Amino acid sequence: MSERFDLIVLGAGSGGLSAAQHAARLGARVALFDPDALGGTCVNRGCVPKKAMWYAAQIADMHRLGAEIGFESVPMRLDWARFRRLRDQYIAGIRQRYAMRLDMAGIRVVPESARVLANDTVVSASGWQASAPHIVVATGARPRRLEIPGFELGMLSDDIFELEAAPQHLAVVGGGYVAVEFACVMHALGCKVDLLVRDRLLAGFDHEVAEDLAAKMQERGIRLVRNVQVRAARGKPGSITLEAGEDAVYGLYDAVLWAVGRVPNSTGFGLQELGVICNQDGHVCVDAFQNTHVSGIYAVGDVTDRKALTPVAVAAGRALSDRLIGGHADAKFDDSVIPSVVFSEPPMGAVGLTEQEARARYGDAISVHRGRYTPLLMMVAGRTEQNVVKLVCVGEDARVVGIHVLGAGSDELLQGFAVALQKGLYWRDLKAAIAIHPTAAEELLLLH
Amino acid sequence: MSERFDLIVLGAGSGGLSAAQHAARLGARVALFDPDALGGTCVNRGCVPKKAMWYAAQIADMHRLGAEIGFESVPMRLDWARFRRLRDQYIAGIRQRYAMRLDMAGIRVVPESARVLANDTVVSASGWQASAPHIVVATGARPRRLEIPGFELGMLSDDIFELEAAPQHLAVVGGGYVAVEFACVMHALGCKVDLLVRDRLLAGFDHEVAEDLAAKMQERGIRLVRNVQVRAARGKPGSITLEAGEDAVYGLYDAVLWAVGRVPNSTGFGLQELGVICNQDGHVCVDAFQNTHVSGIYAVGDVTDRKALTPVAVAAGRALSDRLIGGHADAKFDDSVIPSVVFSEPPMGAVGLTEQEARARYGDAISVHRGRYTPLLMMVAGRTEQNVVKLVCVGEDARVVGIHVLGAGSDELLQGFAVALQKGLYWRDLKAAIAIHPTAAEELLLLH
Repeated sequence: MSERFDLIVLGAGSGGLSAAQHAARLGARVALFDPDALGGTCVNRGCVPKKAMWYAAQIADMHRLGAEIGFESVPMRLDWARFRRLRDQYIAGIRQRYAMRLDMAGIRVVPESARVLANDTVVSASGWQASAPHIVVATGARPRRLEIPGFELGMLSDDIFELEAAPQHLAVVGGGYVAVEFACVMHALGCKVDLLVRDRLLAGFDHEVAEDLAAKMQERGIRLVRNVQVRAARGKPGSITLEAGEDAVYGLYDAVLWAVGRVPNSTGFGLQELGVICNQDGHVCVDAFQNTHVSGIYAVGDVTDRKALTPVAVAAGRALSDRLIGGHADAKFDDSVIPSVVFSEPPMGAVGLTEQEARARYGDAISVHRGRYTPLLMMVAGRTEQNVVKLVCVGEDARVVGIHVLGAGSDELLQGFAVALQKGLYWRDLKAAIAIHPTAAEELLLLH
Repeated sequence: MSERFDLIVLGAGSGGLSAAQHAARLGARVALFDPDALGGTCVNRGCVPKKAMWYAAQIADMHRLGAEIGFESVPMRLDWARFRRLRDQYIAGIRQRYAMRLDMAGIRVVPESARVLANDTVVSASGWQASAPHIVVATGARPRRLEIPGFELGMLSDDIFELEAAPQHLAVVGGGYVAVEFACVMHALGCKVDLLVRDRLLAGFDHEVAEDLAAKMQERGIRLVRNVQVRAARGKPGSITLEAGEDAVYGLYDAVLWAVGRVPNSTGFGLQELGVICNQDGHVCVDAFQNTHVSGIYAVGDVTDRKALTPVAVAAGRALSDRLIGGHADAKFDDSVIPSVVFSEPPMGAVGLTEQEARARYGDAISVHRGRYTPLLMMVAGRTEQNVVKLVCVGEDARVVGIHVLGAGSDELLQGFAVALQKGLYWRDLKAAIAIHPTAAEELLLLH
């Protein structure tokens, strides 16, 4: 015998919570399974604690800038244990509010893992069965582990949030946004950082702007080593070298962070047994409506082959419940314009096509407008570091298909331009708009 | 005998420079008169040094936040003389670049005041005459002085940039953005601040959001006194009281800042004598094409009755030269959407209609969507201060006619949304857009 629901959700991260809560708001009886903390990666091991650390890095950077513009002060040292406690308290508060909201919404939260038995039935680890016409898989992803000797000597991104003190000399292995963000944050907080990259840095981003960021990171003192494929870690905890070939040994490090990608949590839930199809990386294949290849089973968030970003998971979960419960048969979310920000130092933002993507698609019909400028605060401090703004346009009427920004302010300025891009934006619109002076954002209006 | 030009500009501030440089780019022979520093108010006594001071205030605030989230540090003290020197160096650099660009553009720069003799002729203070079919008046504005006893004991906003040390206890008299910005900045930099306001704070902004800012300023420790009309200042330099009636005496202050509005520089140039008409506040009346009531005489920037903002002056100057020199007979700038930011602590931004303006225009057809949230960094620090986002919409399809934001990030996030607003923005566009998480900007997408 199994208890009946209208919707079952596996995973209480951003995507699962979004689907569950929206379905409940629409009147559905919902069961939500997760053996781990409410909030999933974003809240507990991702966006939220990462952004808190980025703010700490910003504060440290602003303090250094302050000393350069006339503040009399001594260097600041972060009490990592205290910072961690405050950050963890904040995150515990978020989880509490989630629990309260789920409770108020009448959602049955089962703090266990679950396995899909059929396309309408799941069973929890303790043997409790639930059934529903709709099962949403939102089991997320986890940091990738490498099958190399000594891997266990290093940390994963999950572990870095547990640190109670700053490493002296940290190696970050990887070239994606997780690697870049932690390299920048840890460096700003006083660590010596080596960033070991196999090939391109931030491969999904505009190459030119990503290289600009790489240059800035190096100017600030991060050691960037490219074309390194780490084959082994040697030593003992706190005293680690990395081997990347016979003569290529890096270190000594007291800490290593592996940031070598993420793998979807798509196995162990009975999905493949039912016929759910995954791509070669293990991501559950879904269509624009979040349907898997099995009727009655859907997937949202990082476990799927769509873009692994919290707001994408949230939009997918919401649209799915609109469709399954709200009766909007054609509900799906528009993923044509997905902005994203790398919380590096300085931050970088992108929406739409990179120059190389636009060139591949439109050839010589594209035009690129870029600006580099040293922002006011940097100028007063006597620094020469430049912000970068770049527009990628198509056609004689210069329709904007990509916006790329690098430098202080990029984190907040991009969202509104992304909304405008989605509405259909032309370069003439930017030139005709009235600026807000002096800001970083206005530079997108002033390009030649 | 007078030398012939195609365009004569009085005033080398943002509006005048824009008109002169654009005209020269289009091939015109241009003469530019200004007895004062190139760059006018914005560069020398306005936006630029103000923003530099705001950054210093931000750094001081971030430092305090840092101490609350776990940084071990001692309070920072600003070396005002050093900061001023660095800031002045930066501004001198801007002026140098302007001078170089004007020189390269072949613009005749006359470092004198000038007077209009006829609608095609001006004469400089030293008697040099120039003529042109087009004369652009861009003489700007200056801080208002009050005819009250002891006024000379206080500073104007121009003077505050000369300070070599922080006042201990500062009175700011006024309720406009200049008063608010300096009250916030000086308080963040360690002054005790009283803000004495005659009636409404930031009258041109959304009342609700302006009151939110007032509350935040008071929570941070600024003493806000309303319904005060200062009638006299008594004492001596460094020891001043302000009288606002028989029993209403404020102080003792060691410094007073009068920020009681600005008056246009419209007299003394021969304009009225030729028939140029000004409104009752002395602003030169212009039409949408920057025409005054006298053929051949135009005006741009703060001297006119249009909105007194640098980017408005720049857009006006450029459009005017497009029309007069570029041959685009219908060139004018679109002033329907003018975003602006108050660099208060925290910053506030607005574009489009306030709630009260929208209600006056559209009555019950408006809908208001507001959100208040405590941002991540504040939460980690254990503060409860909330950011505010507010949309004013019209009609059943909820067309967005006003966006109002208050809190960290407001300075940079607004520009892109202003571009979207100008394109025609609906609430559904915001709800359908993919967020950038976690940011302040995304909150505009998440309103209910």
